[in-house]
Amino acid sequence: MRPSSSTSDLFGPLFGDPLVDAEVGDGAWLRAMLDFERALAVVQAHAGIVPQEAARAIVSAIDSAAPDPASLGARATASGNPVVPLVRDLADALPAAAKAYVHHGATSQDVLDTAASLVAFRALRPILDGLAGVADECERLAVAHRDTLVAGRTLAQHAVPTTFGLKCAGWLVAVDEARDRLDAVRAERLAVQFGGAAGTLSALGDAGAPLVDRLADELGLVAPVLPWHTDRTRFAELAGALGSVAGVLAKIARDVLLMAQTEVGEVAEADGGTSSAMPHKRNPVRAVLVTATTRRVPGLVATVLASMDHEHERAAGAWHAEWETSSELLRLVGGAVRGTQELLSRLEVDAARMRRNLDLTGGLLLAENVSVRLAPALGRAGAQDLVAELCRDAVARGLTLGEALAADARVLEHLSTGEIDEALDPSGYVGSAAAFVDRALAAHQRKADR
Amino acid sequence: MRPSSSTSDLFGPLFGDPLVDAEVGDGAWLRAMLDFERALAVVQAHAGIVPQEAARAIVSAIDSAAPDPASLGARATASGNPVVPLVRDLADALPAAAKAYVHHGATSQDVLDTAASLVAFRALRPILDGLAGVADECERLAVAHRDTLVAGRTLAQHAVPTTFGLKCAGWLVAVDEARDRLDAVRAERLAVQFGGAAGTLSALGDAGAPLVDRLADELGLVAPVLPWHTDRTRFAELAGALGSVAGVLAKIARDVLLMAQTEVGEVAEADGGTSSAMPHKRNPVRAVLVTATTRRVPGLVATVLASMDHEHERAAGAWHAEWETSSELLRLVGGAVRGTQELLSRLEVDAARMRRNLDLTGGLLLAENVSVRLAPALGRAGAQDLVAELCRDAVARGLTLGEALAADARVLEHLSTGEIDEALDPSGYVGSAAAFVDRALAAHQRKADR
Amino acid sequence: MRPSSSTSDLFGPLFGDPLVDAEVGDGAWLRAMLDFERALAVVQAHAGIVPQEAARAIVSAIDSAAPDPASLGARATASGNPVVPLVRDLADALPAAAKAYVHHGATSQDVLDTAASLVAFRALRPILDGLAGVADECERLAVAHRDTLVAGRTLAQHAVPTTFGLKCAGWLVAVDEARDRLDAVRAERLAVQFGGAAGTLSALGDAGAPLVDRLADELGLVAPVLPWHTDRTRFAELAGALGSVAGVLAKIARDVLLMAQTEVGEVAEADGGTSSAMPHKRNPVRAVLVTATTRRVPGLVATVLASMDHEHERAAGAWHAEWETSSELLRLVGGAVRGTQELLSRLEVDAARMRRNLDLTGGLLLAENVSVRLAPALGRAGAQDLVAELCRDAVARGLTLGEALAADARVLEHLSTGEIDEALDPSGYVGSAAAFVDRALAAHQRKADR
Amino acid sequence: MRPSSSTSDLFGPLFGDPLVDAEVGDGAWLRAMLDFERALAVVQAHAGIVPQEAARAIVSAIDSAAPDPASLGARATASGNPVVPLVRDLADALPAAAKAYVHHGATSQDVLDTAASLVAFRALRPILDGLAGVADECERLAVAHRDTLVAGRTLAQHAVPTTFGLKCAGWLVAVDEARDRLDAVRAERLAVQFGGAAGTLSALGDAGAPLVDRLADELGLVAPVLPWHTDRTRFAELAGALGSVAGVLAKIARDVLLMAQTEVGEVAEADGGTSSAMPHKRNPVRAVLVTATTRRVPGLVATVLASMDHEHERAAGAWHAEWETSSELLRLVGGAVRGTQELLSRLEVDAARMRRNLDLTGGLLLAENVSVRLAPALGRAGAQDLVAELCRDAVARGLTLGEALAADARVLEHLSTGEIDEALDPSGYVGSAAAFVDRALAAHQRKADR
Repeated sequence: MRPSSSTSDLFGPLFGDPLVDAEVGDGAWLRAMLDFERALAVVQAHAGIVPQEAARAIVSAIDSAAPDPASLGARATASGNPVVPLVRDLADALPAAAKAYVHHGATSQDVLDTAASLVAFRALRPILDGLAGVADECERLAVAHRDTLVAGRTLAQHAVPTTFGLKCAGWLVAVDEARDRLDAVRAERLAVQFGGAAGTLSALGDAGAPLVDRLADELGLVAPVLPWHTDRTRFAELAGALGSVAGVLAKIARDVLLMAQTEVGEVAEADGGTSSAMPHKRNPVRAVLVTATTRRVPGLVATVLASMDHEHERAAGAWHAEWETSSELLRLVGGAVRGTQELLSRLEVDAARMRRNLDLTGGLLLAENVSVRLAPALGRAGAQDLVAELCRDAVARGLTLGEALAADARVLEHLSTGEIDEALDPSGYVGSAAAFVDRALAAHQRKADR
Repeated sequence: MRPSSSTSDLFGPLFGDPLVDAEVGDGAWLRAMLDFERALAVVQAHAGIVPQEAARAIVSAIDSAAPDPASLGARATASGNPVVPLVRDLADALPAAAKAYVHHGATSQDVLDTAASLVAFRALRPILDGLAGVADECERLAVAHRDTLVAGRTLAQHAVPTTFGLKCAGWLVAVDEARDRLDAVRAERLAVQFGGAAGTLSALGDAGAPLVDRLADELGLVAPVLPWHTDRTRFAELAGALGSVAGVLAKIARDVLLMAQTEVGEVAEADGGTSSAMPHKRNPVRAVLVTATTRRVPGLVATVLASMDHEHERAAGAWHAEWETSSELLRLVGGAVRGTQELLSRLEVDAARMRRNLDLTGGLLLAENVSVRLAPALGRAGAQDLVAELCRDAVARGLTLGEALAADARVLEHLSTGEIDEALDPSGYVGSAAAFVDRALAAHQRKADR
Repeated sequence: MRPSSSTSDLFGPLFGDPLVDAEVGDGAWLRAMLDFERALAVVQAHAGIVPQEAARAIVSAIDSAAPDPASLGARATASGNPVVPLVRDLADALPAAAKAYVHHGATSQDVLDTAASLVAFRALRPILDGLAGVADECERLAVAHRDTLVAGRTLAQHAVPTTFGLKCAGWLVAVDEARDRLDAVRAERLAVQFGGAAGTLSALGDAGAPLVDRLADELGLVAPVLPWHTDRTRFAELAGALGSVAGVLAKIARDVLLMAQTEVGEVAEADGGTSSAMPHKRNPVRAVLVTATTRRVPGLVATVLASMDHEHERAAGAWHAEWETSSELLRLVGGAVRGTQELLSRLEVDAARMRRNLDLTGGLLLAENVSVRLAPALGRAGAQDLVAELCRDAVARGLTLGEALAADARVLEHLSTGEIDEALDPSGYVGSAAAFVDRALAAHQRKADR
Repeated sequence: MRPSSSTSDLFGPLFGDPLVDAEVGDGAWLRAMLDFERALAVVQAHAGIVPQEAARAIVSAIDSAAPDPASLGARATASGNPVVPLVRDLADALPAAAKAYVHHGATSQDVLDTAASLVAFRALRPILDGLAGVADECERLAVAHRDTLVAGRTLAQHAVPTTFGLKCAGWLVAVDEARDRLDAVRAERLAVQFGGAAGTLSALGDAGAPLVDRLADELGLVAPVLPWHTDRTRFAELAGALGSVAGVLAKIARDVLLMAQTEVGEVAEADGGTSSAMPHKRNPVRAVLVTATTRRVPGLVATVLASMDHEHERAAGAWHAEWETSSELLRLVGGAVRGTQELLSRLEVDAARMRRNLDLTGGLLLAENVSVRLAPALGRAGAQDLVAELCRDAVARGLTLGEALAADARVLEHLSTGEIDEALDPSGYVGSAAAFVDRALAAHQRKADR
């Protein structure tokens, strides 16, 4: 049996995670479908709707079932879903007296929707564990580089100094927020489905509604207010939460790619891909693959959202469009999480290069800090005008700002060369960077303590 | 000043809602930007960072400002955003001593992100009110039609009977779930932004971080752990929640369109569009427009999600892509909410036609109910086989199922004609429909009571 | 080896086509990659760049290669693509003297891009054949039902009469237009890729550029002006053309689903899915699956378009995002084509029911035709006003329009009852329907003759 | 009247182009709708269907009409589109005898679809002109920098040398290919629409079909085989072609952003946005805005494709979803074209910095070239092994590759220092770069000559 739906053996390993793949593959779907049928027999036996003996036979048949996805898939095309042949096979394996009690009162969508909830519930476990690992890597880096200076870059240009720790703290907060949401979706929104042919549980008389809650309990899923055959907010929220996670990871990978550029050289992947023809290359392979993987997520989220307009009591296509799409979303986000965790755990950080890059503009990043120090003497506007003049001058003449300042009598009247040096020290111009890192670490700790 | 960004006068009214349009237009954005600058001056004066007099001058200038969006828009192209000319105009309007204190320590993104949060916060008020109205209409219909029989339809075919009340209860639960989420995003995720040039609040020394919380308090927004210039989970969650709402409304509109078809005729819009050339038409105009509007939402959500990969400390484009997109998302969802509310409030329900449509298949919808009643005598499988045979027979010979049953000796041996009639009464085969309606109404009531 | 990438055994058969699956699976990709390496050796030997003996050894190794996708996939993660291990395996299989000549001057992207072109080129063969089959079914139906009356429906309401033939002719034209475009993309846009490490073919001195054209010739692909490593218009056009095809098929499936509704009953799938519990159901399974499949296409097209921003000489992720996405696009469109062909080839058309449905509004669909005939006597406006009054009257009193007309003295003054009957005959009010069908058939014939 | 639909005065100028905005605004739509009605009267008068005098009155009324979009928009909500009130206003302005002849035989969709074709046809003129301008800028840069060396970069890392001219030639070919396609869509796919209430032109008897061709002729649009009310391939192809253009421009902007980074500094926008607080910044504002604008396109293309499933003879929402979406697509692509043209026309290229950046890796980019020259003596594999060893050595010891080579006896045995210098000269290792540039220029010239 294939480990994963929606993947190829050739490309799949680049974009997936074995632990998640195993939870979204054909085997996982079939297991989840059988889990529904098993739980249904159990709770119906408990409620006296199905004879105990029939339920035991059903449970036993399910526990020893080894359904063949290819066979079921081939036979699924007649009815449009694989539940029909699966239930037929199950019934065929039962003693005559039990045959009528399998799948009792249920419809194919009950099985597939509950299975989809279970598949997501189970696949989210390694995804959330991986995200916790990503957060821990961010925390580690934020702590280690709390005071490591790096150029703050806006619109692709150096702006003012910041710290690498704050950059990592920003990743950390984003990851923690995205997994909070995914956690909540897993705990509160993945529900059992049980409504029968048209959502009324008609075949069960008035005994149906109470079974919904018992089934939820048996399967560890949420009990819905109503059958939600055509209310797809649950999967829309799951898709949205996965989309947020992908976006957060895309941002981390993007930052790493930019910092790993040959001209920047501030980080590298410890085991970056190498090339015999180009020995100087340290390809940021993990970051590349995380980027590739996360780029594929928004289109799939749109597919889920655009398929919420289910007709009447069962959609004529919008529902079927969810199955592979949701597996694919889980698979890709799982792969991106694993890739990011690997990326960060092996990230080589070159603090010295970060410091050198900061100096590339010859101190211009600190211009604002200089004018703040001249303001008491020259007035705010006067100080800004003077500093701006000297900045232009420095750029035009190829000087550092320090050189330009130290050569200007108007400056030296108010600032000593020591004071100029101090003003041009980027470590003195990172504002609340450390305080913000500490806020992020504290928030992460509070989350861990919950 | 235009009432709404991202709309045309010609097409806009079809897809928008005046109340929401007013909260996402140029005027609303400018008001929100100025609200940020005003609150900044106030909290910085309180913290002793800005002189009281300067703050008063700033507040006064803002309160009397009448910024011209077209002028600001034209000048925005030089820097890439409208904050730069807006702040320049503000400073120009201030006395010399106050000029330096406006926008103190802030960056353009602080203003625009906070404004985007405020715009969403304010636009969500009429959207959520409208959704509450939609829910109330669903509740009204669910109560009124708790026992109104209608064909349950799956894959575009009659399946088994259900009630129109349960259909409306399904809409109700979906609407309530979607607005729960949107409510939570509004209350918990729309945050103030304040980070300065690169997220360190460098211009404020170490006085910056505490101001974040005070600004949030002043503006009624959430205080973030960190500046979130490049962490876009907040807007991703907003987009996702709006996407869910759109999907829920699309489902309602789809059901109405299907039920309003000439051949079905179960509902109509009281003021449906008419045509002089085609006087028989009662076009379901509201449902058409809600469908059109909601179809445009998933692509916009994907745009937001695909633009989360912000570079470094400020994105080079991904951020700018959000502004019109988020206004458009709010506008469209606002229009779809209003359209759905109008649609449901004026929906004419033809219960008699629903009943007649139920009979179109000559009782075949009740076949399962017949075999349940024959099972004690014939065994489950035997009963099913017999009924299936008679169904095929009825279809082939153009009989109702009742006629076929009443003509079959094997049936009459176990069921009287009265029992046959009873088995073929759809009101006896709606299972937990009423119980489910009651669950939905109770859940809605609990929500109202919160 | 798996027959198909990007699919599961369980769900795949529902949404795919075996012929297309076989062209987009791991095996097809590997074959295409090897085809590139083989052609490269051949043309380089011809150009005297690679020794004849080495080329023969390479060709021989490739012809006997049986690469294992799972093994290659596992090893691909180190470099980020499966070409690196594939070439290593190839070299390992070569005699020492030939090792240096395999993959000579090429880069991984040359192999994968050319393979992607070949995969698409080959998968489009069964897709285009299938589309031709769909067009032929549309033609058959358009011919057979050239004069079969059916209600023309706009905004879900009966409008005026049309013919089922014209509906099918509309499908035909749309299918032919969409396949024209797909044909053109296949013939004109699928190109060989050969640029070496950074698009300059540096390792080949100045001998590189001419090889591009020879490689194209060898492989039956287009010769590009330049290496197109980071110009993705070719795949964007492929994705767009596939998106158009999907949209056209979605329209056909939507029409069938609507006409197959229990209340409409104008068409049915000959082998529609049935249900033992609900023997009256004739589920339009093909139409449901085509709908499901086509719903998944637009999001994938958006993924391709959103991944055109390739960085510099090779993208850091946007390129990798294409591989599984393009396979998936081909797979899904292939499945939708096959499904539609099956759907139409077995479509049962109930012309009598179409005729009966036309009468559901009691002749109101012909109101315009009546006023045209009264206009000479009453003036256009006067005729319209009178007919509108009688229509309202008919609706209010439950009469057919014919009854209302025949009871009105003002009408009878100008029209005999025979003339009224004639005016109310829908076959007399289908305008250019037959002429349009003929135009469509002629256009299809011209296309077939090309 | 607003210049542009779908835009705000505040943000619109950042993402649009005044010339295109003027062609997609409310005024342009209304003009196009009236153009349809005018042409309809003209061709129907010519065909003897409408009296000459009535046609003259209609033409005269249209020529002096000054429709108010806000008023029409407000009244459009009753019927769901603005054609109904527009035609009513037109009729009101006509003498009694002409009233009946305006909009004769047409339906609202005829007017709006033809108008959408005309709006696109007209808006594509400045878009295509702008794209030609972009291509000319690319050509100018490719010519000027045909031999300007720059690092070829793959996966964000230096790979081997290339030329800036080849990079620009790559942009050129992509732009020319994308505009070829857009040109073709404009010339071959934008069609007149004329089908009447349900696509049969029923109100015109059998006189309708020939009018389609005459209308097309009168309006300068394509004549369709059939009315295409529910065949949306034309707009799907337009959207796809616009999506390709956006993707090509996104790639150019991405390259510029990367080359403009502070650490790279190879290009700058001549009038880049500056900041008084950060005088060193030269923000690449145009590139940022082009990036932002193009990011919004794929989601809109997906919306168009996902709305092709039009029901029956007129869609219940999918059609209405196109109007603002297509205006928005044209607006955004127009803005991106203008922004790219401005960007390239003012691009400052620092060839010296490009050359310096090439040396950042101390000659490692030329390693392959060295081993090629050692191969005759050492054998291919032996040469590669030796060079790889020396590369690792150089990196480890902080030497340039030249230093490492010049210090190795095994190398010196076969290469003189002059030969080493030659091997390390990047201008000697750009392969077919110049030949490829020439191919691109020739192809561009051929296109210009067509």
